[in-house]
Parts: sequence; C-alpha cells; structure tokens
Amino acid sequence: MEVRQLIILSFAMLAMAGGPVFGQGGKEPYVRVAEIEIDPVQLEAYQAAVKEQIEAAIRLEPGVLALYSVADKDNLAHITVFEIYTDVEAYKTHLETAHFKKYKTATQNMVKSLKLRETVPILLGVKRK
Amino acid sequence: MEVRQLIILSFAMLAMAGGPVFGQGGKEPYVRVAEIEIDPVQLEAYQAAVKEQIEAAIRLEPGVLALYSVADKDNLAHITVFEIYTDVEAYKTHLETAHFKKYKTATQNMVKSLKLRETVPILLGVKRK
Repeated sequence: MEVRQLIILSFAMLAMAGGPVFGQGGKEPYVRVAEIEIDPVQLEAYQAAVKEQIEAAIRLEPGVLALYSVADKDNLAHITVFEIYTDVEAYKTHLETAHFKKYKTATQNMVKSLKLRETVPILLGVKRK
Repeated sequence: MEVRQLIILSFAMLAMAGGPVFGQGGKEPYVRVAEIEIDPVQLEAYQAAVKEQIEAAIRLEPGVLALYSVADKDNLAHITVFEIYTDVEAYKTHLETAHFKKYKTATQNMVKSLKLRETVPILLGVKRK
C-alpha cells in the first residue's frame, strides 16, 4: 500500500468513527435497561464490582457496544444500567462470560431489587470523537 | 506537516477514538435519564419528532455526546431517553437550541407524563468503532 492510500484509509476510518448513530448501515442493536436497588451500606463494593464487569465486557466482548452505569443524584442506591449489544445473541453470550458471572455472584447480596426492560431503539444518537 | 507526521496523527486520532469510556482523561460527563409516557395514538408522530431532534443535536451541538431514545418492547408508549452531555452547561445550552424548542412544542400534546432524573456516572463504558 502506498503512503497516499494509507492516509486516505486512515481518514476514511476516522470518518466512519464519526457516524451519528449506533447500528448505522448494519442491523439494529439490542438495547436493555436495568434498574437496580442496592443495599446502601454496600454501595461502594457494588460500584467497584460493576466497574470491573463493564471494563472487562467492553474490552473482551465484540458484541458489547456500550454499558453505562449511573446512580440517581438524589438516591445513589438507585442504579440504572443502559446496555447496547450488537444483537440479542451478543447479550446471551455476555451472560455466559466469566466477568459477568463473577459480578453476579459478588453482588447477589448487595442487590435488593432488579428490574430489566427489553427495548426497541427509536434512535441511538452518539458522537464519535 | 510531513506525510509521515500526518499518518502518525491519523492513527493517534484513531487510537483516541477507541477509548473505552466517555469522559476519559477529561471532566466527567453530565448524564440524565428521561422517562416519558406518550399518547399511544400519537406514537408515530412522536418518534419522528424525537428522531429529528436527536439527529440535529448530535450534528450541531459540540456538548451533546449521546442521546439514546428507546421504547419498552412490551409497552411502546413508554420511552426512555439516556442523555450524555460534556457538562451541565452543555445541557443548559441544549435546552435553548431551535431544534430542542421545536421538539418541545411539537410534542407537548403527545406527552402524558415526563420524569427526569439527574444522575452521577459510575462508569460509561463504550466501544469506539
């Protein structure tokens, strides 16, 4: 490959990275919303466990596009996880990974309630830096 | 700039685009969750309005990192919007844009209820393509 071609390829890849939505040009991603109530006295341990799980999933699983974990500002024990997978198979694969199983075991006595919602994307707009 | 430097810069930008979390190396983003109940007979018009608003915000506003709009699979009239801004100022700016005001006016008679939650990120894990 010539230098000139390499430059064009690099910028083409950058342009692709700048696409405005997940799933553009391919199949629609699979999105779930988890709402979790944590035992307030175990919040710090829960946060450490969920961070470790998310970091591993993003790094190791091709089908995990995003895992966003946030706490309500006025109730830090109420956690929302917004989850974007390439498809439902990627989600099923995620459930079988060592890092997810470790997270489930580590947090089973921290979680007071768990509500899972399957969703249908309307638009997944994201800025690619 | 020499060709060689340009190539290195391109790949450095690609590497940055591959970072695992929003807000890495900078300030923490500002994240909100909106839960919206839509009048079921106006769902299609609502979806069109929210798509237009999100597309414009991602394209025009530097401070809007992501706006994900999804509907519950078992209740398409229940919408969740997961919103990531660079900071609270970017959110305030967003509220004053023409596209957001157009969306608010267009949907005011479609929205039956609206719950807004301010959050504190635990981890915003995202795969950069």
